[in-house]
Amino acid sequence: MTFVVLTLFPELCAAVLGESILRRAADRGIIRTDLRGLRQYSQDRHRRVDDYPFGGGGGMVMTAQPLKAAVDAVVQDYGKKPHTIYLSPKGRVFNQQIAIELLQHDSLLFLCGHYEGVDQRAIDLLVDEELSLGDFVLTGGELPALCILDAVARMVPGVLSTEQSFQNESIYSGLLEYPHYTRPALFEGLEVPAVLREGNHAEIEKWRRRESLRITAQRRPDLLQAVRLTEEERRFLREQGLCDDG
Amino acid sequence: MTFVVLTLFPELCAAVLGESILRRAADRGIIRTDLRGLRQYSQDRHRRVDDYPFGGGGGMVMTAQPLKAAVDAVVQDYGKKPHTIYLSPKGRVFNQQIAIELLQHDSLLFLCGHYEGVDQRAIDLLVDEELSLGDFVLTGGELPALCILDAVARMVPGVLSTEQSFQNESIYSGLLEYPHYTRPALFEGLEVPAVLREGNHAEIEKWRRRESLRITAQRRPDLLQAVRLTEEERRFLREQGLCDDG
Repeated sequence: MTFVVLTLFPELCAAVLGESILRRAADRGIIRTDLRGLRQYSQDRHRRVDDYPFGGGGGMVMTAQPLKAAVDAVVQDYGKKPHTIYLSPKGRVFNQQIAIELLQHDSLLFLCGHYEGVDQRAIDLLVDEELSLGDFVLTGGELPALCILDAVARMVPGVLSTEQSFQNESIYSGLLEYPHYTRPALFEGLEVPAVLREGNHAEIEKWRRRESLRITAQRRPDLLQAVRLTEEERRFLREQGLCDDG
Repeated sequence: MTFVVLTLFPELCAAVLGESILRRAADRGIIRTDLRGLRQYSQDRHRRVDDYPFGGGGGMVMTAQPLKAAVDAVVQDYGKKPHTIYLSPKGRVFNQQIAIELLQHDSLLFLCGHYEGVDQRAIDLLVDEELSLGDFVLTGGELPALCILDAVARMVPGVLSTEQSFQNESIYSGLLEYPHYTRPALFEGLEVPAVLREGNHAEIEKWRRRESLRITAQRRPDLLQAVRLTEEERRFLREQGLCDDG
């Protein structure tokens, strides 16, 4: 799977993608990342990529020309236009379900805005989908683009060491994750729960499932609605005063 | 305002913070960033920072000792413990309101997890608040920590060129932003809306407000509930078939 990022800060993106799991996946040819600086596509003689907004107001707006030229170059290089995403608070709010949808494409292109925003005509001409990371404002689109890239890329088969390792995760089961503990058994006066040290696999599974249920009921009751619970699990939540019947 | 990040990937964080607006703010002494690699705090002779989970299961868990030692060192250096945030899908979902809350602290510490997670006792002992960027899973806590750092830091007075520039933003007015246009007036056959080129300030303001209303009603009707509309604005939405009375 190929991930193209069009950005004013290719070095920033390279530093993020150069670390950890995604770097190893790229080295092994499982994913390909293609980071392109937008200035090189500017036809302005000073390589400018922004200009004053029509209608006035503070801030600068990214011009359409370098964005269009960059996307044209990508199309030329790959023989097709990748599914093109613009990061914006106006977009659909990203979540794991959307990450799974995006995994169906063989290439994604992220267009990172900066300054006040991007000329609307570039969005109208080039963008297939606007995505938002949430209801907050950032200085640029790079960090949200890299979050989405990371969330999608780690599900590409072979990127994580075992495919199992993401399918057991909280968000996949619809529940928040149970607490983790590692050595030492006693740290600053706090003990690891006995059940985890006793090695009874069935008891450990039961404890973990119950902890997931308890934490989800306490912190994100909205998530619990979509999960199928057994009669015993419902009884457990009622006993904990975390009734799911409401 | 001081931002401390405890991470396995300090270079990644440095690369992100070394670009753009936050770098200039740090150079001018408006914000301070303090990125600390966790391995230097490990007492393990191989500087390991993870171990197998009690109770089995895939993946590794970050040990509590280096995290505790790193926070102790920060407390020593600053004479107080910064407000400490752990990035986790189990946390409160971050938004602009939380960014404004966090701005009230004079220092923030972000604890970035990796692998399967962090020993729960480190969270119990050290963390004031768990925050989530949304319902999706990432390979580590660095990108969400940097998103939150960015969202907060850009509101510190003096970081943006005029304080006005963020207070006019979509998320602050409770509406999504109107479209932006810059030169040329004609691009790939698409014209900038005439009203923006005609220079009538009152008409431009009216157009922008209506575009914000229209886009918000179409894409995020949930946001519209919290906004006070004039009678004329309600009429406009009804005329557009985007009734807000529902």
